[in-house]
Amino acid sequence: MGSSALTARFGEAITKKALRSYLAEFISTFFFVLAVIGSAMSSRKMMPGGVAEPGALVVEAVATAFALASAVYIAGSISGGHVNPAVTFSMAIGGRISLPTAIFYWISQILASIIACVILKGTTAGQEVPSFGISEEMTGFGSSILEGVFTFALVYTVYVASSVDPRNSVGGPGLLGQGQGQELRAIGPIMIGFVAGAGVLASGPLSGGSMNPACAFASALVAGSFRNQAVYWVGPLVGATVAGILYDNVVFVSASQPSADSTALGF
Amino acid sequence: MGSSALTARFGEAITKKALRSYLAEFISTFFFVLAVIGSAMSSRKMMPGGVAEPGALVVEAVATAFALASAVYIAGSISGGHVNPAVTFSMAIGGRISLPTAIFYWISQILASIIACVILKGTTAGQEVPSFGISEEMTGFGSSILEGVFTFALVYTVYVASSVDPRNSVGGPGLLGQGQGQELRAIGPIMIGFVAGAGVLASGPLSGGSMNPACAFASALVAGSFRNQAVYWVGPLVGATVAGILYDNVVFVSASQPSADSTALGF
Amino acid sequence: MGSSALTARFGEAITKKALRSYLAEFISTFFFVLAVIGSAMSSRKMMPGGVAEPGALVVEAVATAFALASAVYIAGSISGGHVNPAVTFSMAIGGRISLPTAIFYWISQILASIIACVILKGTTAGQEVPSFGISEEMTGFGSSILEGVFTFALVYTVYVASSVDPRNSVGGPGLLGQGQGQELRAIGPIMIGFVAGAGVLASGPLSGGSMNPACAFASALVAGSFRNQAVYWVGPLVGATVAGILYDNVVFVSASQPSADSTALGF
Amino acid sequence: MGSSALTARFGEAITKKALRSYLAEFISTFFFVLAVIGSAMSSRKMMPGGVAEPGALVVEAVATAFALASAVYIAGSISGGHVNPAVTFSMAIGGRISLPTAIFYWISQILASIIACVILKGTTAGQEVPSFGISEEMTGFGSSILEGVFTFALVYTVYVASSVDPRNSVGGPGLLGQGQGQELRAIGPIMIGFVAGAGVLASGPLSGGSMNPACAFASALVAGSFRNQAVYWVGPLVGATVAGILYDNVVFVSASQPSADSTALGF
Repeated sequence: MGSSALTARFGEAITKKALRSYLAEFISTFFFVLAVIGSAMSSRKMMPGGVAEPGALVVEAVATAFALASAVYIAGSISGGHVNPAVTFSMAIGGRISLPTAIFYWISQILASIIACVILKGTTAGQEVPSFGISEEMTGFGSSILEGVFTFALVYTVYVASSVDPRNSVGGPGLLGQGQGQELRAIGPIMIGFVAGAGVLASGPLSGGSMNPACAFASALVAGSFRNQAVYWVGPLVGATVAGILYDNVVFVSASQPSADSTALGF
Repeated sequence: MGSSALTARFGEAITKKALRSYLAEFISTFFFVLAVIGSAMSSRKMMPGGVAEPGALVVEAVATAFALASAVYIAGSISGGHVNPAVTFSMAIGGRISLPTAIFYWISQILASIIACVILKGTTAGQEVPSFGISEEMTGFGSSILEGVFTFALVYTVYVASSVDPRNSVGGPGLLGQGQGQELRAIGPIMIGFVAGAGVLASGPLSGGSMNPACAFASALVAGSFRNQAVYWVGPLVGATVAGILYDNVVFVSASQPSADSTALGF
Repeated sequence: MGSSALTARFGEAITKKALRSYLAEFISTFFFVLAVIGSAMSSRKMMPGGVAEPGALVVEAVATAFALASAVYIAGSISGGHVNPAVTFSMAIGGRISLPTAIFYWISQILASIIACVILKGTTAGQEVPSFGISEEMTGFGSSILEGVFTFALVYTVYVASSVDPRNSVGGPGLLGQGQGQELRAIGPIMIGFVAGAGVLASGPLSGGSMNPACAFASALVAGSFRNQAVYWVGPLVGATVAGILYDNVVFVSASQPSADSTALGF
Repeated sequence: MGSSALTARFGEAITKKALRSYLAEFISTFFFVLAVIGSAMSSRKMMPGGVAEPGALVVEAVATAFALASAVYIAGSISGGHVNPAVTFSMAIGGRISLPTAIFYWISQILASIIACVILKGTTAGQEVPSFGISEEMTGFGSSILEGVFTFALVYTVYVASSVDPRNSVGGPGLLGQGQGQELRAIGPIMIGFVAGAGVLASGPLSGGSMNPACAFASALVAGSFRNQAVYWVGPLVGATVAGILYDNVVFVSASQPSADSTALGF
């Protein structure tokens, strides 16, 4: 694209509306990371001997599900409720948001994540902030695949939730009846939370179960350990991209293309 | 039916729309099995001594509920969101989908389940993939009944969710007011997830709590143990069939038959 | 009322529609009790030493929440989704359903509960079926109050869910805007499940956390122990009655009385 | 404001409608505190040795999420479903409710909380009622910040849920499509429950995880220990105020100001 087009797009990226959407991403990601990392610190406090037990996995998964659902809900109508650089990346690749907007989203998300971790460290009198890590038996490659596959499921669910548009009453070009959609919009944020919670339950003790590069990066930064950090970027970004391409080009292709110019979650 | 009718039906089963629905079944079942079997592997890693505890049951049940709800949600408008050969079997028996379509659904579901288990084995450096099994005290017959009864509840819920049709605004021929239905469509996938989660909590340590032949078969195949495999086919298929027949012929009989020609979940 | 009026009401109680509603109550209560009592048996199997732990409470509460939500959902449009003699009792006291109908509902609910417990005993090769009991330190009177208060909350929630009527678009005579209601109908069954789950978490290890006389009676019958059975009848029936009277006469009084002649949950 | 205006406002605060809304706040807060404090007593009974474990945190968080969601749901159309003095405080600061109304809401909420704790103490034969406390390593200042930040998230979610208005079909002045909103109203109470549950998981073993001054005050009163009580007032009230100001003035500013004169949750 030409330089003036780029400038125009950049101009769009700093309007009042756009600034509000960055703020919405900031608030939602801040709360999400606070809940996810905070609950890891909390469940560690409940295990004095440090012996792992399934209850700690439930704590982490339920915190992720509850926090992501509400984080997506509160930002949904302002910024689309990405709350995750992998979602933003996929939307930028698919042309649903412009590159400058994506960059500001990323900055908001990563900044919010870092501040959340710093606050957790500060308010708990310097207790160690946990970072995501992979199990001993796992390889970095295997972990990247797991993180990628679960991020695929997460981002795919975001796309489904964003394509259900009440004004077009599109139910997808499936075998089934059309004219549905409005009702299913209602539970989009819950479904996004549930799919992430299931991902944590399935991959937490194996590959870490982050599915969110901002959360993984910030906790690693504040914990001071970037071991296997690549796992939490390569897998999720690839998985998110594949989800977007597959959804937009194969699964959800209709004549009217109702959501082609919608930006994101769209509710 | 005549040979040409069969050919026509088979033709319908390989249209572009139909292929998309097989892909949707594949993606949803793949994610569902990944979450269910992955969470069993994960919770085992959290119990170093291998001592069973209720927390592991919570992990499995919540993973099932969250993953099935979102798997049904993301495939709902494309394929009807069966994600389970027992659901497909019941729909085929009841004439809601054609036999060729049902066969392709089964192939998609079973293939996706196997690939999910292979990926779990591969990415975790060859860790043992758990398969469903019955408790020592249980008989195969008793276990089949339990699996069948909970699959009955699951499939019955799928039928209820699929019969609520906003265009006909039918609320069922009950004692209560009509004209409702649209709102309840919204939570169908959540209810399907919840009923499966309750089934796991109630039957997991007794009969295994699979309620899904594809998931049971694939994990047995990759684990290399088909002990009591019949339990996970006979019970669920019978339970699913009874649910469909009971619902279509006894519970939900209305003059207008609003969902008679809908294929499945119908949202 | 006169004898002929009673006969007429009894006649209404055995129409085809009514029989379907008894069947719906039967199926939902059967599944609910199977899930609640089954999960108690399952979590006991996960605690070999028999040492209590919070995870078992989570199992019971989540099973109750998930199973009640889906049981109410699948019966909602047919029978109103009572699934509980205390709900039916309250609706009969308040004149929302006739006495003969209430009696048939009770019979369906209690019969379904007994069969569920018998199946659990039968399929598990005669394992002990657990019954509800109160903690050592608790008195029968204190336990009745706790059970009554939580049943009050449960039945009150059922009334709220049943009063939200999309055709009248009533949002209640509150301080807030009117014209809402349709959307909130959607989550009624989930809220009913959640309120019951919270009740189990708060009262389970104290007073038993049944809130459902049919479930308590059937498990006691099959377990062969009616100790403190009165706790699970007196408290819930009184709590349910108070909830109905308070809701119908104080909280929800509007000029148009939109739900006065609706029978129950009304969705 | 003048004396007569104040009198008028006070008059509004004691109309029949208003009295009903205080009753609704009373019932919902009563049930909420009963569930939250009751589940803390219950989970303590499940840990005979008194050793902390993650399962107890799950009990507390799920009880909070389930109970708050249903408490907000049942009071929503009558009183707005505050169930929390911090929410009421923020709404009063923002001019959404009048000062006299806010005072009566506070009285209802605090009275209900005390009675709930007294009933728990009474029915359990005088067992110790637990009160919220901060972890050894935490300072009062750090704990106040944590409680404040999570109350911010809770109150912000309440504001989002209350701004989605079906009659104006406003979806927020974001990057995304407008015309949505009606569907999202449906899950407002669930989101409010989820955000509180995530807060408990993240802050429970650190700062106590109350986010509700009425609940913290009443349990402290009945337990007879006001240690660190300021933490549960200063943090939440400041967090709630910031959430309201930020939402009303920065995030949700639209030309039509659709929810400017709505009182609260608005569903």
